[in-house]
Amino acid sequence: MQLDTNSIDNHNQSRLNAHKNKLSYWADEVEKAEATIQKLIDFQIAIPSWALGTGGTRFGRFAGGGEPRNLEEKIADVGLLHALNRSSGAISLHIPWDIPTDPKAIQELAGQYGLAFDAVNSNTFQDQSDQSLSYKFGSLQHTDAAVRQQAIDHNIEVIRHGEALGSKALTVWLSDGSSFPGQLNFRKAFQRTLDSLGEIYAALPSDWKMFVEYKAFEPNFYSMTVGDWGSSFLYASKLGPKAYTLVDLGHHLPNANIEQIVAILLNEGKLGGFHFNDSKYGDDDLTAGSIKPYQLFLIFNELIEGMDARGMNHASSLGWMIDASHNVKDPLEDLLQSVEAIQLAYAQALLVDRVALEEAREANDVAQAQEILQDAFRTDVRPLVAEARLRVGGALQPLALYRSLNMRQQLIGERGAKAVATGL
Amino acid sequence: MQLDTNSIDNHNQSRLNAHKNKLSYWADEVEKAEATIQKLIDFQIAIPSWALGTGGTRFGRFAGGGEPRNLEEKIADVGLLHALNRSSGAISLHIPWDIPTDPKAIQELAGQYGLAFDAVNSNTFQDQSDQSLSYKFGSLQHTDAAVRQQAIDHNIEVIRHGEALGSKALTVWLSDGSSFPGQLNFRKAFQRTLDSLGEIYAALPSDWKMFVEYKAFEPNFYSMTVGDWGSSFLYASKLGPKAYTLVDLGHHLPNANIEQIVAILLNEGKLGGFHFNDSKYGDDDLTAGSIKPYQLFLIFNELIEGMDARGMNHASSLGWMIDASHNVKDPLEDLLQSVEAIQLAYAQALLVDRVALEEAREANDVAQAQEILQDAFRTDVRPLVAEARLRVGGALQPLALYRSLNMRQQLIGERGAKAVATGL
Amino acid sequence: MQLDTNSIDNHNQSRLNAHKNKLSYWADEVEKAEATIQKLIDFQIAIPSWALGTGGTRFGRFAGGGEPRNLEEKIADVGLLHALNRSSGAISLHIPWDIPTDPKAIQELAGQYGLAFDAVNSNTFQDQSDQSLSYKFGSLQHTDAAVRQQAIDHNIEVIRHGEALGSKALTVWLSDGSSFPGQLNFRKAFQRTLDSLGEIYAALPSDWKMFVEYKAFEPNFYSMTVGDWGSSFLYASKLGPKAYTLVDLGHHLPNANIEQIVAILLNEGKLGGFHFNDSKYGDDDLTAGSIKPYQLFLIFNELIEGMDARGMNHASSLGWMIDASHNVKDPLEDLLQSVEAIQLAYAQALLVDRVALEEAREANDVAQAQEILQDAFRTDVRPLVAEARLRVGGALQPLALYRSLNMRQQLIGERGAKAVATGL
Amino acid sequence: MQLDTNSIDNHNQSRLNAHKNKLSYWADEVEKAEATIQKLIDFQIAIPSWALGTGGTRFGRFAGGGEPRNLEEKIADVGLLHALNRSSGAISLHIPWDIPTDPKAIQELAGQYGLAFDAVNSNTFQDQSDQSLSYKFGSLQHTDAAVRQQAIDHNIEVIRHGEALGSKALTVWLSDGSSFPGQLNFRKAFQRTLDSLGEIYAALPSDWKMFVEYKAFEPNFYSMTVGDWGSSFLYASKLGPKAYTLVDLGHHLPNANIEQIVAILLNEGKLGGFHFNDSKYGDDDLTAGSIKPYQLFLIFNELIEGMDARGMNHASSLGWMIDASHNVKDPLEDLLQSVEAIQLAYAQALLVDRVALEEAREANDVAQAQEILQDAFRTDVRPLVAEARLRVGGALQPLALYRSLNMRQQLIGERGAKAVATGL
Repeated sequence: MQLDTNSIDNHNQSRLNAHKNKLSYWADEVEKAEATIQKLIDFQIAIPSWALGTGGTRFGRFAGGGEPRNLEEKIADVGLLHALNRSSGAISLHIPWDIPTDPKAIQELAGQYGLAFDAVNSNTFQDQSDQSLSYKFGSLQHTDAAVRQQAIDHNIEVIRHGEALGSKALTVWLSDGSSFPGQLNFRKAFQRTLDSLGEIYAALPSDWKMFVEYKAFEPNFYSMTVGDWGSSFLYASKLGPKAYTLVDLGHHLPNANIEQIVAILLNEGKLGGFHFNDSKYGDDDLTAGSIKPYQLFLIFNELIEGMDARGMNHASSLGWMIDASHNVKDPLEDLLQSVEAIQLAYAQALLVDRVALEEAREANDVAQAQEILQDAFRTDVRPLVAEARLRVGGALQPLALYRSLNMRQQLIGERGAKAVATGL
Repeated sequence: MQLDTNSIDNHNQSRLNAHKNKLSYWADEVEKAEATIQKLIDFQIAIPSWALGTGGTRFGRFAGGGEPRNLEEKIADVGLLHALNRSSGAISLHIPWDIPTDPKAIQELAGQYGLAFDAVNSNTFQDQSDQSLSYKFGSLQHTDAAVRQQAIDHNIEVIRHGEALGSKALTVWLSDGSSFPGQLNFRKAFQRTLDSLGEIYAALPSDWKMFVEYKAFEPNFYSMTVGDWGSSFLYASKLGPKAYTLVDLGHHLPNANIEQIVAILLNEGKLGGFHFNDSKYGDDDLTAGSIKPYQLFLIFNELIEGMDARGMNHASSLGWMIDASHNVKDPLEDLLQSVEAIQLAYAQALLVDRVALEEAREANDVAQAQEILQDAFRTDVRPLVAEARLRVGGALQPLALYRSLNMRQQLIGERGAKAVATGL
Repeated sequence: MQLDTNSIDNHNQSRLNAHKNKLSYWADEVEKAEATIQKLIDFQIAIPSWALGTGGTRFGRFAGGGEPRNLEEKIADVGLLHALNRSSGAISLHIPWDIPTDPKAIQELAGQYGLAFDAVNSNTFQDQSDQSLSYKFGSLQHTDAAVRQQAIDHNIEVIRHGEALGSKALTVWLSDGSSFPGQLNFRKAFQRTLDSLGEIYAALPSDWKMFVEYKAFEPNFYSMTVGDWGSSFLYASKLGPKAYTLVDLGHHLPNANIEQIVAILLNEGKLGGFHFNDSKYGDDDLTAGSIKPYQLFLIFNELIEGMDARGMNHASSLGWMIDASHNVKDPLEDLLQSVEAIQLAYAQALLVDRVALEEAREANDVAQAQEILQDAFRTDVRPLVAEARLRVGGALQPLALYRSLNMRQQLIGERGAKAVATGL
Repeated sequence: MQLDTNSIDNHNQSRLNAHKNKLSYWADEVEKAEATIQKLIDFQIAIPSWALGTGGTRFGRFAGGGEPRNLEEKIADVGLLHALNRSSGAISLHIPWDIPTDPKAIQELAGQYGLAFDAVNSNTFQDQSDQSLSYKFGSLQHTDAAVRQQAIDHNIEVIRHGEALGSKALTVWLSDGSSFPGQLNFRKAFQRTLDSLGEIYAALPSDWKMFVEYKAFEPNFYSMTVGDWGSSFLYASKLGPKAYTLVDLGHHLPNANIEQIVAILLNEGKLGGFHFNDSKYGDDDLTAGSIKPYQLFLIFNELIEGMDARGMNHASSLGWMIDASHNVKDPLEDLLQSVEAIQLAYAQALLVDRVALEEAREANDVAQAQEILQDAFRTDVRPLVAEARLRVGGALQPLALYRSLNMRQQLIGERGAKAVATGL
């Protein structure tokens, strides 16, 4: 299914006056409006290939319909999102769920939708049917060198797939850990994991990065071998300059101050990328900004502060990706909502008066510092985000357009009501 | 597979001297040794039919082998456990995973193993393939009356199955809730759930109980409609005298004082039963006593205090059941460990000097109250638990015997390495 | 110190054009603008007398200056807040920190500032120097009947003070509980507390309410005898129709869904009032809306839904109060920020399109329900709140005016740099 | 007050037969009994000078009586503990609460009790009355270089005091952080803190260590500048080989796996020391082992594994200290209970069959690994700990002896019922 550009034009035309009215108000109200719009245009958030189907929990999965049945259809789905919001211009593949058998053709197809290939993701947290050794007790940490080698080989294979598509980074998320006290020798598990990562690192192309993702718990329920930012930082430091920490918002203990972690990692030059989602209890993988939008804003506030301090380009210097699970929503709608929430948080953070903020901080004027942040957060930046979309051919209101065109129904018509995408 | 009683005799014989030596020491050390042994003999913990296979998470499942392929084999597995420890004399069925097509035969089979049928469990948290309406957005809370009716009918059907087998209780665990702010009208969801429960309650046989289980989160990640003990208590109070709250140790927010909840519910006459497991982060469903054994002891301390204060029989007045998931262990070994840990905690709690404890409390002698509890907890009651098993024909060391007889290998031989039990 | 009304006029005059411009935009954008403004005008949030000085932690307290030295100065401070924002028209006293020796005079003084007396608060969590028995091991739960009687008598005395001032409610927050396993017989503690509360309840004037506040932990670190909403609800139900649960936002376990608790309590007719603050870890007592503004909005969303469903008046049917601690800010500035954040959340919740929301809910249109809530939350309602203030004589920007008039410096001039208010 | 050695002898004599009976049983049961006893004898746990008085919370403090009024009496209290248990042979001083005006005399006094001086502790989390600049907004992180210098100077002064007494380590616990989003530039705060620590580090004697303690929250409630082990490790790594991380059990986010942190830090050669206490919610500072004794055991299990792997001496290579607050118990009784709980955990961890454990781990035999740990934990090692005390002149049951001699009453007689020790 391709989105007709006429559809977008008609949609925008009918909303244009109302939009212009809002924009003109906010362009007056907000000093940095134009600069913000430009930065929003440049800012792209990758969509993971496994987030295009309905997700589930260990208790069950309630599939929707019209889910993509193969990599080509996944690319089409991301292409549809990108046509709507002009901000989802990259796809992040997962191996082995999305092995591109004909990389050239796949790259060409993605190019037709204006999509690049973001970080590739390995999977050693599940056993595949054709796999000789099991990851039941871990992969890169495993006590058996043969299992470790299998996992290393898999990661290197993922790099090769990524090279063929033009990816520039490998994301390694390990479920390795233990579920019971006593199960693991923490020391040896750390060393084995480090050694294994080292072999993968050695296979990285020179212009690639490796993202070492951490997670506090699940699916292991006692310890995770890359369990927090401190551990991930240790691995990344020992591995070398191409290794970085990747932060997934849902991978922390309760009440963690994620924005401070972001600031520290940026300061150490070791923040590599982001997995956006939201959560109330654990790795709930809910729509970005649906539970704690102020936290999302505070994270962007640190990102901007830290990237600007180091002269990093907002759009290109870090990996930005959504990583969510859509258990009770249409996945495409959920992704549109996530991208919108991320853009709003980014835009609000761009509005922060940084000079005044630093002044307030230097003066320990806590109330004023809070006022400055809240002033930005309380600003209704939706017209700015809409304008950014409008300027590059996207829809003023992507979700509304998606709905008015009955896109899910069209997808079901094409793919069937029982189509189930690979993924979690 | 049946356990040869000779095996147990041989096992016990070879360990008897060492055991008698220990027992004689502890019989001297501990005043209430004999009374404790008698209570341990009476205390039975039900095994859920879904806990006999390897469990998994949303990320994957690493099956073991020799898992029971049908209800008959599940009963055989529980029978094996019971033969080993003489404390697993009941099985708790789950419908529709374990529909007994010939209840008479099933009952007879269970009887051969000395097993009774504990509470039956309904399932409205998953869609079955032959189901007309979906539980994607809840069951007893659903906005659509037809879905609610389907769920009510299912629960009543579960009661009928239970009646045929001699069960005396229905456990209702609902995954109903919401994953996003706004999704649910909490007020209406509560009322609908209450009305639906009311219809099920009306269908309860006169000598049955209904257990209303609560859970803080998962699989819904914003709200659960029966989310805490307060909610469950409200439902149970409004439903009537046959309705009770069921406590699952893993269903709480971080740091909850579960033992206090137990005491309050007992005091209100509304505690119905228990699901034992252990956890560090959420509903991790780990082996009972594997993470916080002192908490397990404190819970039993409240149970004994509260049941004794109300003249309740320890063994029969509450429903005792394990509810765990065995992701990285042999399920039968895990269950043997859980039962042992529960018995140890129960035995230690029986040893508490309650007269001295009340004296210390009345005097606000906090250090002394702590000493009294710790004195019981620090006591090595393993010989008492072993003696209880020995007296009624169980094995002194069930896990060691299970291993020495290569039982898992035998089961794999019988059932195959790829047999996968129904369940989570 | 009295605020010169000219100051407000000058302040408003200089900002009027900009304000009118914003208001006119939003009056067009938001359908319910006028109704919202009216409701904001009626909505008053009580200020606790103990929140006018610098707060501290067990590690220390860093006093500011110009803190009120007596009840009269506390009333003057609240009067100042109310003059600025016209929304802080009530003061909540704490006994014994603020015993009114001449109630008539105090009432008259408050009247001059336009202030009413909100709920009165007892204190049995500290020992006063003239106290005969200690609350070290609890008050209403105490094993010694004489201590319980002392605490009962104190509460009744607090009611008498409240009556003399025109209060209509007593807030009972108990620190009673235990810090170690074993310390407390939970059952007896519950019964004793209930009996003690019953005696206080019996002394309530007929038109009074009793608020039973709960708290999960601190200052007791193992159990709290009124530890969660379920417990508080039990006490309030047993006490009678004048007893209600009071919710303090900071008194929950991590990740608690407070808005759902609010909905349940309202539905049961047992929600009595609110203590506003914000927190990240425990009872941090931070400025309302400073950490989780979306949660604050969601709470108001439930409050409005539930109160409207029961025909309750927003302004008068519940007790609204701030309960915060100002450790690193000027207390008056902090309170202005808190009131503003509460008003914004209330205004945003008023904007929710409830008809559309219920439609989305009935259709299980989760994405749409989220859109509806987020649409309201993302609206910049600051002009509406400012307009509400403007219409009844408050300042367009209370904090800015407070600062421009150097009010803290004036207070220090009057009261000295070392003045320390009673309180925590 | 000095403890009469006759008292101990009499106490021991009357319990000797019972003890010998138990010991003989356990010496048979436990292979490593004698080696364990020897290690227990060598193991000393320092007592902090601020833990000898009644502690409190921000809500209040309920003093006991007979608290030490000066450093000499604090030393006497620790001397008393050490006489009773022979395991509290060191005292950890806090400056400025315990400035030794005559170090020689103090050292001599301590020597009479057999006490050494453990790490000295600085205090920049409170303002002292004679202090020129305030720490309200931090100390080593402060925006004002003069405040930082004051804090640096204070730390160096603390080192000088420590040198005079024979201490060999400085513990730096910083409350530096922020209570509101926006308040702090995390990057600058980190750098300033690092620079300040660097100046203190430069002043360390060559044979000293610096312990950088981390804490997740309190008294700052949004961010802590040394907030987790990762941060502390970063500081310690940048500072140099004499800087180490110090772990306080209560300073973590909910559900943290502290034992894994210990293993990682040991493996990196950066674990410096320990503050023992227990907690359920936050930094509750309860008696060690009173809430989660199994966790305490698991921590010792990692300590032993890690220290043995690096050839570190258990008794001397790390700093061991209790850091608790005694709000509802006699401080000396609480400390006796803490030391006992620590010794029990250490002894149980020594009993772990490490060869078998490593075998089980290498074979991924999770159930067996759990059995091995639980076997050690379930062993009643109290007779071994008592025997260790007995052999070096301590009491078989220190708490019982303390009580039978009415020691608190004697202290009240000496010091008065209103004596209040400096501290929290």
